Amino acid sequence: MTQQKPSISLLFEPKTVAVIGASATPGKIGYQVVKNIQDGGYEGTIVPINPKGGEVLGLESYKSLEDFPGDIDLATMVIPAKFVLDSVKACAKKGVKFLSIITSGFSEVGNVEEELEIVRIAHENGMRILGPNIFGLYSGGVSLNATFGPSDINKGGVSIITQSGALGIAMIGKTKVENIGLSSIISVGNKCDIDEADLLEYLIDDDETKVILMYIEGIKNGERLVPVLKRATTKKPVVAIKSGRSKRGAMAAASHTGSLAGADEVFDFVMKQCGVHRAENLQEAMNWCKYLSEVPMPKGENVVIVTNGGGVGVLCADACEKHDVTLYDDQAALKEAFSGSVPSFGSTKNPVDITGGASMDDYMAAIEAAYANDDIHSIIVLGCETAVLTGGTLTEYIGKIFERHGYEKPIVYSFVGGSEFEDSAGVLRDQGVPMFPELYDAVSCMGVLYADYRRRGMGEEAIAEPERKPVDAERINEIATAVKADGRSFLLANEGLEVMKAAKIPMPVSLISHTMDQAVAYAEKIGYPVVMKVVSNEIVHKSDAGGVALNLENADEVIDAYQAIMHNCRNYNPDAKITGIEVVEMVKKGTETIIGARIDPGFGRTIMFGLGGIYVEVMKDVAFRSWPVDNHEALAMIKDIKSYPLLLGVRGEEQRDIDGVVDVLLKVGAILESCDLITDIEINPLVAYEQGEGVKAVDVRILLKKD
Amino acid sequence: MTQQKPSISLLFEPKTVAVIGASATPGKIGYQVVKNIQDGGYEGTIVPINPKGGEVLGLESYKSLEDFPGDIDLATMVIPAKFVLDSVKACAKKGVKFLSIITSGFSEVGNVEEELEIVRIAHENGMRILGPNIFGLYSGGVSLNATFGPSDINKGGVSIITQSGALGIAMIGKTKVENIGLSSIISVGNKCDIDEADLLEYLIDDDETKVILMYIEGIKNGERLVPVLKRATTKKPVVAIKSGRSKRGAMAAASHTGSLAGADEVFDFVMKQCGVHRAENLQEAMNWCKYLSEVPMPKGENVVIVTNGGGVGVLCADACEKHDVTLYDDQAALKEAFSGSVPSFGSTKNPVDITGGASMDDYMAAIEAAYANDDIHSIIVLGCETAVLTGGTLTEYIGKIFERHGYEKPIVYSFVGGSEFEDSAGVLRDQGVPMFPELYDAVSCMGVLYADYRRRGMGEEAIAEPERKPVDAERINEIATAVKADGRSFLLANEGLEVMKAAKIPMPVSLISHTMDQAVAYAEKIGYPVVMKVVSNEIVHKSDAGGVALNLENADEVIDAYQAIMHNCRNYNPDAKITGIEVVEMVKKGTETIIGARIDPGFGRTIMFGLGGIYVEVMKDVAFRSWPVDNHEALAMIKDIKSYPLLLGVRGEEQRDIDGVVDVLLKVGAILESCDLITDIEINPLVAYEQGEGVKAVDVRILLKKD
Repeated sequence: MTQQKPSISLLFEPKTVAVIGASATPGKIGYQVVKNIQDGGYEGTIVPINPKGGEVLGLESYKSLEDFPGDIDLATMVIPAKFVLDSVKACAKKGVKFLSIITSGFSEVGNVEEELEIVRIAHENGMRILGPNIFGLYSGGVSLNATFGPSDINKGGVSIITQSGALGIAMIGKTKVENIGLSSIISVGNKCDIDEADLLEYLIDDDETKVILMYIEGIKNGERLVPVLKRATTKKPVVAIKSGRSKRGAMAAASHTGSLAGADEVFDFVMKQCGVHRAENLQEAMNWCKYLSEVPMPKGENVVIVTNGGGVGVLCADACEKHDVTLYDDQAALKEAFSGSVPSFGSTKNPVDITGGASMDDYMAAIEAAYANDDIHSIIVLGCETAVLTGGTLTEYIGKIFERHGYEKPIVYSFVGGSEFEDSAGVLRDQGVPMFPELYDAVSCMGVLYADYRRRGMGEEAIAEPERKPVDAERINEIATAVKADGRSFLLANEGLEVMKAAKIPMPVSLISHTMDQAVAYAEKIGYPVVMKVVSNEIVHKSDAGGVALNLENADEVIDAYQAIMHNCRNYNPDAKITGIEVVEMVKKGTETIIGARIDPGFGRTIMFGLGGIYVEVMKDVAFRSWPVDNHEALAMIKDIKSYPLLLGVRGEEQRDIDGVVDVLLKVGAILESCDLITDIEINPLVAYEQGEGVKAVDVRILLKKD
Repeated sequence: MTQQKPSISLLFEPKTVAVIGASATPGKIGYQVVKNIQDGGYEGTIVPINPKGGEVLGLESYKSLEDFPGDIDLATMVIPAKFVLDSVKACAKKGVKFLSIITSGFSEVGNVEEELEIVRIAHENGMRILGPNIFGLYSGGVSLNATFGPSDINKGGVSIITQSGALGIAMIGKTKVENIGLSSIISVGNKCDIDEADLLEYLIDDDETKVILMYIEGIKNGERLVPVLKRATTKKPVVAIKSGRSKRGAMAAASHTGSLAGADEVFDFVMKQCGVHRAENLQEAMNWCKYLSEVPMPKGENVVIVTNGGGVGVLCADACEKHDVTLYDDQAALKEAFSGSVPSFGSTKNPVDITGGASMDDYMAAIEAAYANDDIHSIIVLGCETAVLTGGTLTEYIGKIFERHGYEKPIVYSFVGGSEFEDSAGVLRDQGVPMFPELYDAVSCMGVLYADYRRRGMGEEAIAEPERKPVDAERINEIATAVKADGRSFLLANEGLEVMKAAKIPMPVSLISHTMDQAVAYAEKIGYPVVMKVVSNEIVHKSDAGGVALNLENADEVIDAYQAIMHNCRNYNPDAKITGIEVVEMVKKGTETIIGARIDPGFGRTIMFGLGGIYVEVMKDVAFRSWPVDNHEALAMIKDIKSYPLLLGVRGEEQRDIDGVVDVLLKVGAILESCDLITDIEINPLVAYEQGEGVKAVDVRILLKKD
């Protein structure tokens, strides 16, 4: 009897906040939380709960929730773990809508049962749980700091969702250092109920939130998260740090390991699919968030580098290629734009090199020219300290030009020099100039801006619900149910083929003959060469019985094979009932691919693609996506593998039938979706022929849920 | 009539320094250089040269070099380009040993001829040239700052060689910001004569120089550089930044592009071969140099992470895997070492997590335990700001423990927190504590230290001159000379095979028969199946003439083929003189590899290895080395390719004959070395069979110098 869930906006904008375990004793968490709520300037009602009653920071406390006459939107719980369950029951009874359990000592230390019980009680009573094992939440919209972390949080445009409490608190500090303002920060901890997806639902439409940052250690309910993430990234940038990317890191995070590729690779592909920008480390994430929260969208992809030093110009061109930043390349237009400001021994090519000998006025003229030119969409300004470009001139000139133009266009600055020079750069940074000591960091910010620009360009296409390929779900479920009834969790070859048929996935043609004439007729119908196999329930190992013949090229060979198989099998097992002889198309050589679909422990339904054999096994050259995908995304996935050029045809070969591969990818996903019993499907190989000649699923392996 | 070159130590430790173009006018470069030399505290003789004479900064100037009575070890030239050549002649006449030409306007703007003339004059007179187009040089050993850059340079253990002048000057500033001391910094500019190799010769044995940093845009004389680099890295760490790694960057640096793989890839492999640590950007290089110049060598590979936060611990484990830092893994030993300091809810596994709730004393106890344990060789200390780990306790406790133990073992610190916390970290950094705001940067330093540790472990092996495989150099030169005489710069198939023979590289057996009986006898000798081909100078397109028969499996087929070929060819060209019919072994299927050797424009003789076909063409999976290599390095090269597991055997296959591949690699290098006419050799494919079954060079392409 699960009750309807309250709107997530009540978590971010509660009118009344209770603190269960409020304390008058400084140093206690129950004191700190109340103090933070007060100091933060929250204007709603604060309800301290303490069984002993008394005053807490000037507020009269209640001995129990029941004593408080009004409704409670959010309760923050800071009592010892052993009291939590009873208190959760009391909250449920009181009709509390959201409960933020700061207390730790639940699933993270193996106490899974009690955590599940808490969730059960909550859901039965229309209550939702944040945590446990968190530092609380800060919501800038209502100036609510219901955490035991720092009390002074800068308001701004970045919202943080963090799975690590300690790192979250440290990040609050770090945002202050980096001069980043927060619209909210929420600690999700064990994610027993509320997870990233719930929070994103609110943040997507929260006008205060310009950028969302997530620190993730593990994905729990990816099938809910993915569509929400896709929607979020069409509206605002989402940056993610996921730790546990390495084997050792994953061990440290006690994460599961994937089978074919590490789970981290799946995460990487799915984040890309969702348009999320994955940062490697905290500093990079902070740089990106700050920049993305301040900079406007560029109007196009033409980026120009203005530098006074060739060396840093070359380094910057390298960085641009690394971070997928497109350097404007129209030599004539560049010459026209910059010839007035670049001395004759400089270069108007991009990087535009005014040289170390140029005056500050030349420098400024070049930057002005870049701002003035409508075909130039973003600007990277570099500099080395010189006789004219000193600490003093840096603050003066760059300060002036940024004051004049600021973010008329996306711009970044990076300068190298001595102490006075660096101090000047620091002054500019404090004034809001996007100034980076290392040019690679500057270009990395420009790169993530352009990744976001491209994502924004996708519009509705990015979130449209893909049409599914029709598959015979009834038949598939029938097969799977029969297999389960047989006590197995894997399908036999013929059962797998039946599933393929139900999805109309092309396979080698196969017909069962009952006479020699019929065998010849079928072989003629299928086309030579063919393979023949005995069909008999009593003969399992067909090859051992001499019941298989390969590469039969004409009627005579089919006749010989028919006789030989009958003879061999009768000798092998005189009691065997021979139902017939299967005549199967010999699969022609083509490009072998592997297609898979499985229930990922974190992301749920995922699909996989790679080229057959060693490409997957040795080169680990595979791509993943969260299901569902549309045609476009399936094609993008195929293009993601490094060996993709093989499908386009190398050494004079024709292009392979990529449409056919896409079709099977979509069908395999649809099969997985059509039947809850299926956990794993792998077609290996799916042979792809020349464009228009189709594909053939040669072998398929399907696994079902183990009960 | 080139004179003997002066010892490079005179460049670094000159007793007398002339400044040609010295000026009394502040702001002029000729003034700045003299002033820097004076201010730097140089104790040798300064000789200002100015045609007008007069006093320069209190020194009597000379109107010409001749007027100065003594010897001049180093002359620094700051006069306009048009006067340089005459002045070089004067220097040569005076017997100047080293000339540092600051002036620009030579090969970098296309004025190649004059630069070559300068070098010619210098070498004829036993003089060497630094530059032109540089900012000069600073040599800490004699406190000589003969640059027009900053006058205040911190002395220390890092020596910088830079190809970019502007960036070099900016780097001097940057080193001051980063608190890095310099033993020398030399601007090499156009490298018309003195290059990195010359300078390294001095720096290898310079006791003041602990670490060498090179900023490189292009390699000019790699065959000299490589052996010197190899020697240098066995003694001290060498860090390199090479710009122009991207296509666009290479264009910007006006660099050449490689053929099979970008030249940058060759650079990357050769630096690895030389034990050089390649940094991506300036900040990374500075971090490495500072850390490497201060830290002692570790005693082993066991690294322990001590943290108060699980999240940063996981991130750090990821960073360790990325940077090849080995986490100590003996659970029992870790438990014994840390159980006293880690609370029960923490973890003694590595990362050792004392948790946010632990006291500062616990923290310190854990670090002390890591110092005390001889099986722990290096320490990474992480922290998030908490109630107990505040800015105040950070400086106090970490300051104390670093004071007590410092670099008893390699250690790095990284802490995340708010402004006060960061300020405290900054105070510690100023005190010399290796403290990094971003833990990935900390681990990157630990990683480069371990890379260096492994290099140091190689000892003499790293620089021993490899033994060459014997090849018949005389025969190879004879073939190449004949080809040149024929007006070609490429070898025909049979000429290529002759070269292979001269190096005893195994090829398919081939015998030329003159009668049908002989053809059968040869086929029997070679073993079936065989291929037969007509031999006739008049029949070039053998297949078109019906002069080729494949896959002949027995004597009858050989007889039929012999008759058919004779018949076809006589019909095809009745006038053709048929010399015989070649009987060739049919090459069995195996693993196709590609082996190459070529003269790289920058590195000179290089060798290449990859797996055949699409691995090279599509996956770009190739490895390079500078020649010569020994067995060990050739094997390392083979292991460098991602598809290496294919040679070990996949899917139940036997291992391939890797020794055979190594043998051919070494022979191909030896061929290139044996004959100055040859520029390119490519064996494609070299088919590798099972271990012990050898390899076969099926096709070879050899190119000669174009005159």
